[in-house]
Amino acid sequence: MDAFAVPGLPEVRPGDDLAALIEERADLRDDDVLLVASTVVSKAEGRLADLDDFPPSPRAKEIAGRLADVSGEEKDPRFAQAVLEESTEIIVEAPFLLTATKFGHVGVNAGIDRSNVGDGGADLLLLPERPDESAARIRRNLAADPAVIVTDTCGRPFRHGQRGVALGWAGIPASRDWRGETDRDGHELAVTVESVVDELAATANLVTGEGDDGLPVAVVRDWEFGDHDGSDNLFRDVEGDFVRQALRGWEFARD
Amino acid sequence: MDAFAVPGLPEVRPGDDLAALIEERADLRDDDVLLVASTVVSKAEGRLADLDDFPPSPRAKEIAGRLADVSGEEKDPRFAQAVLEESTEIIVEAPFLLTATKFGHVGVNAGIDRSNVGDGGADLLLLPERPDESAARIRRNLAADPAVIVTDTCGRPFRHGQRGVALGWAGIPASRDWRGETDRDGHELAVTVESVVDELAATANLVTGEGDDGLPVAVVRDWEFGDHDGSDNLFRDVEGDFVRQALRGWEFARD
Repeated sequence: MDAFAVPGLPEVRPGDDLAALIEERADLRDDDVLLVASTVVSKAEGRLADLDDFPPSPRAKEIAGRLADVSGEEKDPRFAQAVLEESTEIIVEAPFLLTATKFGHVGVNAGIDRSNVGDGGADLLLLPERPDESAARIRRNLAADPAVIVTDTCGRPFRHGQRGVALGWAGIPASRDWRGETDRDGHELAVTVESVVDELAATANLVTGEGDDGLPVAVVRDWEFGDHDGSDNLFRDVEGDFVRQALRGWEFARD
Repeated sequence: MDAFAVPGLPEVRPGDDLAALIEERADLRDDDVLLVASTVVSKAEGRLADLDDFPPSPRAKEIAGRLADVSGEEKDPRFAQAVLEESTEIIVEAPFLLTATKFGHVGVNAGIDRSNVGDGGADLLLLPERPDESAARIRRNLAADPAVIVTDTCGRPFRHGQRGVALGWAGIPASRDWRGETDRDGHELAVTVESVVDELAATANLVTGEGDDGLPVAVVRDWEFGDHDGSDNLFRDVEGDFVRQALRGWEFARD
């Protein structure tokens, strides 16, 4: 399996044809996996916004006030309003805003980016509205027929640091299913559902990097999904997520 | 960057020299990253055990009884005892046992495996006691000088499915640090600490697979850590982990 970043992508602007920009710079094959950072997907889709687009509700003011108390820093209630509008549930209100986005991803600040906003003067970059559809659209517009994954980078419980994750995908199932298969000794496997889109997003992160030298597009080549059932069920419902349930009932307390 | 599985490793037994077994089958280079599944590390280190090695304490009986109530299945209190002995904290008691291991990893059943136990008749395979030392030992015993990562596969909150993670590492920092760096537009980066050992473990999983065709060793070649500060701080302390704090106060309730 080979993984490499696609070099030389220009600054992406609303309305740009990402598929064309990528294929001008990479000779894609039908069995490749193409990984595109949500930042450039959002820019192409015009998901840039200004703080003034989000006049704060009383709830947003309350959230920003609490975050300001906890952090000792000023917090913009318009930003809290943007997070509220991008989310279906606020899971944690302090010491940071952890929410579920409309498409099911759980992340800090609903994944809204205040860096990477480009040179157009916008304040905010929102995540793609429906990353599965974004991936499918890019895929349709390509001459080749690779799988496409829209990726992001975010933190996680239990472990420090951030790693690549998938937000949306097309032409590949989210997971491969090893259920019912056995190990060398005939025991049933402990590992049953492997989240390949997240593992591919992590792989992409290793070669794209961050920062001003960061490249937003990567290709994984000569990888095989193999002969397995697949599933597209990646984001847990709150009913099946004990951590989300626990966080609902939790209150941040300062020492 | 290239990633491939090392083929043909025999069934590993206590006392085996893993480094030698691997180098007989792979021509390692000094700038490779060698990823070794904890299952074979544990086997080589003799971390096999029998349920009878763990006479259950009253606490283990209580835990097993609760799990049996919740699941409607019989639960072996000796297994609960094994999990207790491998853990520093029981974070969740039901509907499954989520614990922190002595070396800091948070996982279900302290990562104790009831499949993959090999053909020696043992009931359980415990995780390596100190995976950092395991990685360092393998590295010392190799002729080449690659980085070495001991990996596992486990689930996570918010998302279905399992993915590769690092348990221990040597010859590479756990994370690369992008703090203070800026994006193309001069904004400070949102992504600051990238957990490269976890991303490398995820990459390895894509090429090793599971099951009776699964291969426990992979190599990542031609990947560069780059010119960054590194950190070995991977496992969150409970003080810095709001999810762990929330789970401490949470009680599973059946519908």
